[in-house]
Amino acid sequence: MDVLFVSPGPDLRYLIGYDAVPLERLTLLAARADDEATLIVPALERSEAERTPFARAGGRVVSWGETDDPWALVRSAVGAPRSIALDPQMWASRVLRVQKEWPDATVAAPPVVAGLRSVKGDDEIRALREAGEAIDRVHRRIPGFLRAGRTERDVAGDIAEAILDEGHSRVDFVIVASGPNGASPHHSVSDRVIERGDPIVIDIGGTMPSGYCSDCTRVYVIGAAPVEYVEHYSALLEAQERAVAAVAPGVPCEAIDAVARTHLTEAGLGEAFIHRTGHGIGVESHEDPYIVAGNTTLLVPGMAFSIEPGFYLEGRFGARIEDIVVCDEHGAVRMNTVSRELCVI
Amino acid sequence: MDVLFVSPGPDLRYLIGYDAVPLERLTLLAARADDEATLIVPALERSEAERTPFARAGGRVVSWGETDDPWALVRSAVGAPRSIALDPQMWASRVLRVQKEWPDATVAAPPVVAGLRSVKGDDEIRALREAGEAIDRVHRRIPGFLRAGRTERDVAGDIAEAILDEGHSRVDFVIVASGPNGASPHHSVSDRVIERGDPIVIDIGGTMPSGYCSDCTRVYVIGAAPVEYVEHYSALLEAQERAVAAVAPGVPCEAIDAVARTHLTEAGLGEAFIHRTGHGIGVESHEDPYIVAGNTTLLVPGMAFSIEPGFYLEGRFGARIEDIVVCDEHGAVRMNTVSRELCVI
Repeated sequence: MDVLFVSPGPDLRYLIGYDAVPLERLTLLAARADDEATLIVPALERSEAERTPFARAGGRVVSWGETDDPWALVRSAVGAPRSIALDPQMWASRVLRVQKEWPDATVAAPPVVAGLRSVKGDDEIRALREAGEAIDRVHRRIPGFLRAGRTERDVAGDIAEAILDEGHSRVDFVIVASGPNGASPHHSVSDRVIERGDPIVIDIGGTMPSGYCSDCTRVYVIGAAPVEYVEHYSALLEAQERAVAAVAPGVPCEAIDAVARTHLTEAGLGEAFIHRTGHGIGVESHEDPYIVAGNTTLLVPGMAFSIEPGFYLEGRFGARIEDIVVCDEHGAVRMNTVSRELCVI
Repeated sequence: MDVLFVSPGPDLRYLIGYDAVPLERLTLLAARADDEATLIVPALERSEAERTPFARAGGRVVSWGETDDPWALVRSAVGAPRSIALDPQMWASRVLRVQKEWPDATVAAPPVVAGLRSVKGDDEIRALREAGEAIDRVHRRIPGFLRAGRTERDVAGDIAEAILDEGHSRVDFVIVASGPNGASPHHSVSDRVIERGDPIVIDIGGTMPSGYCSDCTRVYVIGAAPVEYVEHYSALLEAQERAVAAVAPGVPCEAIDAVARTHLTEAGLGEAFIHRTGHGIGVESHEDPYIVAGNTTLLVPGMAFSIEPGFYLEGRFGARIEDIVVCDEHGAVRMNTVSRELCVI
């Protein structure tokens, strides 16, 4: 590729440490294979751009005024490339503009930056550990938020404040799925009133000032859960432990998924485990590598990802146990250490 | 256009009330000009999709499993369109996939939904008023968070919690720009320690459970601001008032910008007003109409937008006063009513 265009989002944060908000004004990193990169920004964000590690290291920043054409700056930065790589999350309006500006160039969105991002360095692992400790502290406070008679939404509000309070700079998601809502893996919150005996699946995450994300799921119950639930939960806990134990350099991602799936299938819950086992995490909550059937990518030290098997029984209840782990030379190192037992309140 | 594809984001929320998170698994609304629309979702989000107003009104939802090809479902939903419209924020990876799936179709990202979104109905105006009231309550609490010796980041943390506490479901941005940082319009926060006499520009917003956004800027000072600053602020306040008073049906967006700019220019601050006067707001913080030179769009009743002139003097200080207004048959109705005077603590 002659040139790589990166717009605000995780790739830009990763490459040049610039946490620009994706908005309608064009911000674009234009990196030429044969020359230095140029960061094109709106004039009113110039001083923010000047503070990025990229600019401080001497990177070129050019800015455009409110009534200028920013694409004129892009053209003069890159000339006439024959092949253009885009960050995979660039907005359609910009993708089509790029194709119009350079109609003879081939345009693709290969996962070049994703590949770099998927293997973490020591600083990044430290940042993920801090994120894990922060979200663990939130989970430790959750028993104080849960009472029969409160709604999922009430509890989620307290959790969101605690996510900020424990050191995150942004709340990314708060799932409080009580009773039958737990059977929907991506349920967020509702006005359902929590009752005694409801298993409550709580999956929460945020972004730290470092830019790195947390993500951890635990299950709570006020009083006693149904006996059958407790049995299923025990099988789930074992599936999660086995999947974590299977992590090692050289193991294919899909094999980790298979370990969790096999155990749940043997426990009669294979059909109820309706999603993949995990996803990578870093400057984005979901990124490479995905721990899913068909992904033959081999684990290497520095890969960081969730291990989060679950079971979902429509109309009844659900569960998920999720930790972030980092693969090192020997195996998995957990970033979340808060108890994985069913938390009875 | 034969078909419209909409991926998770503001257009999808607006059209079908589905607040899906943009993630790597494909969620897509495929609307045919000659047939009903189909919502394609990952299996694990099916029950969330089934709860949307779209599905409840009988809209067709189809889901794909973790190892299926979701594009096969898209193909069977839309057949062989000759022209395809994309939502303008669709990810590049998906845009290129659409072009590959239908190589003979023309693909564009016209602002069709943006046009619908720019004129609000009564329910939407009510939602914007509730959002305005919520963020106004946060501004009223800010004097309690500001003390000399605290950092911008400390104050921003308290504000973020208050944004949630006052009824928002999400914090969208918290700008705390003290002293010289106020000269950067899109400064967010830093570890700068706030001192007596610093003007502090605080621009905050969030999303309400309704899906509608708030956005309001006020300036605070601990002790007394410099005399020159107070004079500039007075000119800014007058510029904001005049721009609000100029709002009426049939007035071009650019004329509102010109009113604020002319007044600041007469006050010697024209060069220091380095951004447009405002942006539309609704299910997204920034949307049509933009109040900027060159935008000849005529205001119509129901348009909702910010009026936020400012001045920015590099190395010294800055200011911005921002309210959301709705254009009705007579003129502007303010959604923010907290005092616009420089708030001296």
